Amino acid sequence: MAETFGQRLQERIRAMGPLCVGIDPSSALVGAWGRPDTVEGLEFMSLAVLEASITAAAAIKPQVAYFERFGSAGYRVLERLIGDAHDADVLVIADAKRGDIGATNDAYARAWLDEASPLCSDAVTVSPYTGVGALTPFFERATRGRGVFVLAATSNDEGRDVQRARTDADEAVEDLVLRSVAQINRRDEGLGSLGVVLGATRDRPRFDLTMLQGPYLVPGVGAQGATPEQVGRLFDRCPEGTVLVNVARAILEAGPERSALRDAVNRWRDNLTSFL
Amino acid sequence: MAETFGQRLQERIRAMGPLCVGIDPSSALVGAWGRPDTVEGLEFMSLAVLEASITAAAAIKPQVAYFERFGSAGYRVLERLIGDAHDADVLVIADAKRGDIGATNDAYARAWLDEASPLCSDAVTVSPYTGVGALTPFFERATRGRGVFVLAATSNDEGRDVQRARTDADEAVEDLVLRSVAQINRRDEGLGSLGVVLGATRDRPRFDLTMLQGPYLVPGVGAQGATPEQVGRLFDRCPEGTVLVNVARAILEAGPERSALRDAVNRWRDNLTSFL
Repeated sequence: MAETFGQRLQERIRAMGPLCVGIDPSSALVGAWGRPDTVEGLEFMSLAVLEASITAAAAIKPQVAYFERFGSAGYRVLERLIGDAHDADVLVIADAKRGDIGATNDAYARAWLDEASPLCSDAVTVSPYTGVGALTPFFERATRGRGVFVLAATSNDEGRDVQRARTDADEAVEDLVLRSVAQINRRDEGLGSLGVVLGATRDRPRFDLTMLQGPYLVPGVGAQGATPEQVGRLFDRCPEGTVLVNVARAILEAGPERSALRDAVNRWRDNLTSFL
Repeated sequence: MAETFGQRLQERIRAMGPLCVGIDPSSALVGAWGRPDTVEGLEFMSLAVLEASITAAAAIKPQVAYFERFGSAGYRVLERLIGDAHDADVLVIADAKRGDIGATNDAYARAWLDEASPLCSDAVTVSPYTGVGALTPFFERATRGRGVFVLAATSNDEGRDVQRARTDADEAVEDLVLRSVAQINRRDEGLGSLGVVLGATRDRPRFDLTMLQGPYLVPGVGAQGATPEQVGRLFDRCPEGTVLVNVARAILEAGPERSALRDAVNRWRDNLTSFL
């Protein structure tokens, strides 16, 4: 039987540690690297961060918005980054937070998870405002080792109103997402194709985090304030290799110098590994 | 004082009627038009629908997913469509349903609302799962005639769990979105820059729809089952020119023949105009 995304990611985390390097080539960071805020600056930063990540990160997570701001030219850079990462055997999680209804989601799933697409990544993040059921086209295409991370609880305070709102069954929306994803993961033996995004800055949800049967993608560490220790506590009883921690700004601020960047990646990997 | 997006759209609806033509070049529809499912097929359908819409639609709404599935090459087609629509003086609402947190939303807002971007549209749809407050960068860039439509209640059944969940203040999430958008629109005199997406297939929310001080973008009519009469009832006391009704599949199914396509557009415009 083919491996699921959860299994592939688990192997990678066991081999490399739990660090996911966030590639966020924002106007501010590209500027701080002394590069012009153009597609050339975007490409320079993206490929440099990929290179520094190859030997120490389980995955990279390009933030699609920073590529989309340059339109099709920015997407060409993203396509190159994804291709280079595949060649270097680094997992790519496209942080796109897509989410619509019906056939539209199938088109988004084709964009990010179908091998015929130049944007095809190992996994994509999706947003459940239109309902977890509406995301079915993503779940159906998350096979043959590809995966999906559904937003459950994001790392920002403003998200709580919606994510903690209570459904007719008196369940918090974030718990509904976690429970629904866990349910679909039962289609696979062992770890399944579906993960969730759960901010490290958030309190523990009511859902028992050991029951997801899939991976967690954890933002909020580093520049956003959460520590590796907090992440370790939040996921303390989860199976080994199921927690992937994203660090972006705190690494990118090391600047373009190759050894400084590589040191920052390695330092974060070691730091996270001691708590996860 | 510069016109807001709400004011621009209202003028357009008064002059042209309340029809927004949805440009959804899905694999199925491009195939039904007898074209290959390639960027050439995508471009052919998109530009043909634009041409048929120029004299009878207030706006077009390209569904970004269908362009994104071809990566940067699909985005080049979308850029051409947006440019041609601007030249033809047709408003463009990019149906992207973007939504993230913090600085990432500013990058998305730059992609879709900043004149320097090749994707710059008149308005963009956004998703509030990360909280309405997180969308502030979009609201800040929605000036000088550009606008944002925030998802409140989508036209699909699966959305109700999340959108009808109740916040700590015992308010439905969809009402929270409507109320928050109305509040921000008060920064402008008259109609403001912010609209909401409210599916025609949904029951009336508790929020008094006449109080939005901004436009409604209404999907769900035609192939999804709602009738123009239902839309008329749902928005019966709203100011003239504030309700924009999207019709996609029911028009695109007319096929590529120029006069058939134009007839379908005109028929829907007339049909909607008699109820709105």
